[in-house]
Amino acid sequence: MICRAALAFLLIAAAPPTGEPLLVPAKVPTVAEVIAAAPPRDWIAFEQDDLFYMMLANGHRVVIALIPSFAPATVANIKRLAAAHWWDGTSVNRVQDDYVAQWGDATEKKPLPPGASKTVPYEGDGIPDPALPRTPVPGPDGYAADTGYVAAGWPVARDPASGRAWLVHCYGMVGVGRDEALDSGDGAELYAVIGASPRNLDRNVTLVGRVVDGIERLSSLPRGTGALGFYEKPEQRVPIRTVRLGTEVPRAEQLDLLTLRAGSQSFAALVAARANRSEAFFAHKADYVDLCNVRSPVMQKIVQRVHIDAK
Amino acid sequence: MICRAALAFLLIAAAPPTGEPLLVPAKVPTVAEVIAAAPPRDWIAFEQDDLFYMMLANGHRVVIALIPSFAPATVANIKRLAAAHWWDGTSVNRVQDDYVAQWGDATEKKPLPPGASKTVPYEGDGIPDPALPRTPVPGPDGYAADTGYVAAGWPVARDPASGRAWLVHCYGMVGVGRDEALDSGDGAELYAVIGASPRNLDRNVTLVGRVVDGIERLSSLPRGTGALGFYEKPEQRVPIRTVRLGTEVPRAEQLDLLTLRAGSQSFAALVAARANRSEAFFAHKADYVDLCNVRSPVMQKIVQRVHIDAK
Repeated sequence: MICRAALAFLLIAAAPPTGEPLLVPAKVPTVAEVIAAAPPRDWIAFEQDDLFYMMLANGHRVVIALIPSFAPATVANIKRLAAAHWWDGTSVNRVQDDYVAQWGDATEKKPLPPGASKTVPYEGDGIPDPALPRTPVPGPDGYAADTGYVAAGWPVARDPASGRAWLVHCYGMVGVGRDEALDSGDGAELYAVIGASPRNLDRNVTLVGRVVDGIERLSSLPRGTGALGFYEKPEQRVPIRTVRLGTEVPRAEQLDLLTLRAGSQSFAALVAARANRSEAFFAHKADYVDLCNVRSPVMQKIVQRVHIDAK
Repeated sequence: MICRAALAFLLIAAAPPTGEPLLVPAKVPTVAEVIAAAPPRDWIAFEQDDLFYMMLANGHRVVIALIPSFAPATVANIKRLAAAHWWDGTSVNRVQDDYVAQWGDATEKKPLPPGASKTVPYEGDGIPDPALPRTPVPGPDGYAADTGYVAAGWPVARDPASGRAWLVHCYGMVGVGRDEALDSGDGAELYAVIGASPRNLDRNVTLVGRVVDGIERLSSLPRGTGALGFYEKPEQRVPIRTVRLGTEVPRAEQLDLLTLRAGSQSFAALVAARANRSEAFFAHKADYVDLCNVRSPVMQKIVQRVHIDAK
């Protein structure tokens, strides 16, 4: 396998900073061990301003972390729509098995609020490579010259020839529905990937975020029986009660979410752990993992203050 | 992209047998066009003896095509269990998001019927490459030297060095639960893949089939909240009313299912259509498709006899 050398490098990089690096580690840590050992500096917190809280009428919550850096104009429009409470009373209208769950205004006639744009520049083909700290995926990828993770674990592909970088359609990624015209997606119609990574959509639609809590609330919805998985009867749609940015959510209902920081030692160890599973169950070690088979764990940070002075 | 030449070859191979081959096709056919144009010789029928009909107590049906050629001992044991109606009254016990739905006897104590084996030889590492007619996937795959489709569209990887071939964990594939010992899976505990292709399981578990009808009945079940997605309360489990091989299903309830034959011209055209989507929506052509992003379409064959002689 061509990626063995690269993985050995990752293992060295993942060795504890104290003491000698492990040239030949006795055992690749498991994912659980990597998470347990990750120091505070390897975690990154999501900003409430980038969190999109969607409350379904059935009481279920879905939280999406928006990614302004890869789609600034589209995410700005989405934030305008959320601030205007535009999605309140809309619905999940389409659930296509092994593909996407999609929500928005079923009538496609609800006017956008003042300040929001009906036409947003197409941002599906990525941005000039921002050269962020990054954890590479060693080994080949059929869709792109180069893949890896940046920032809060966003899966990103790059093309050194064009100098561009773009988000990739992994499970849980959120994108913008559009018609045939590239600039016809304004962000009002959104979908989440709920099946095998539809990489053929890469560079064809603007990705704007990733579900960081509650993806199972979308992936377990009944499938629509109409064309493309649309619900055929209005009463089958799943109503959306509210969508709020985290900054508008009452403090007690905000989630303080952390994830591993791409480019950190722990993230490299996470990739190595997924590429060669050391749990006893795995008799065959793949010595490889594709971009979409690693997801940065999302943890909720709970701070407790304990009174320790004299009672 | 390294696969362009190979795809051009596929396009030539997919040209109609009459007339000149299309050296420079004006347009890659769409998946829908490939299916519509596939001649009868490019379709293959499933045998009822290989179809596993699972009726859930909620009235939903899931049909799995078993693949004896890649796991003969395990599939033989599964057929013994089905013939003994062993799964009747068992349940779906585990649904882990982005991973698997798993069913069997929740108590793990139900005795196997006479003739069925508690220990079956491990068949997860494939078989000597059967050199079946095959449609290759052009381009790289990180997990295996070589990938493609055989027979009824089974996704298969090969290692020319060892001469072995094995089934691959794509969406809808069905495998055998086991403990740490490789030979601890007897086929009584089965799972279906309902998320991003967990290729790290390849060569670690015995795959025995593929869901050919009703995968959405499993993938839309509520996720279990226990470890590994097991349901925490017995009443959350989804009861299985019956499991029957097609040979025991009343004729009126049998499905006559067809799929594209791997190795046929139509199957090569299907792969080409998925690698370069010619629908107007796709501005960017990937010029590549990974093994798990092509699934042979499953069609139901309905024969009508119309009386045409004098009334």
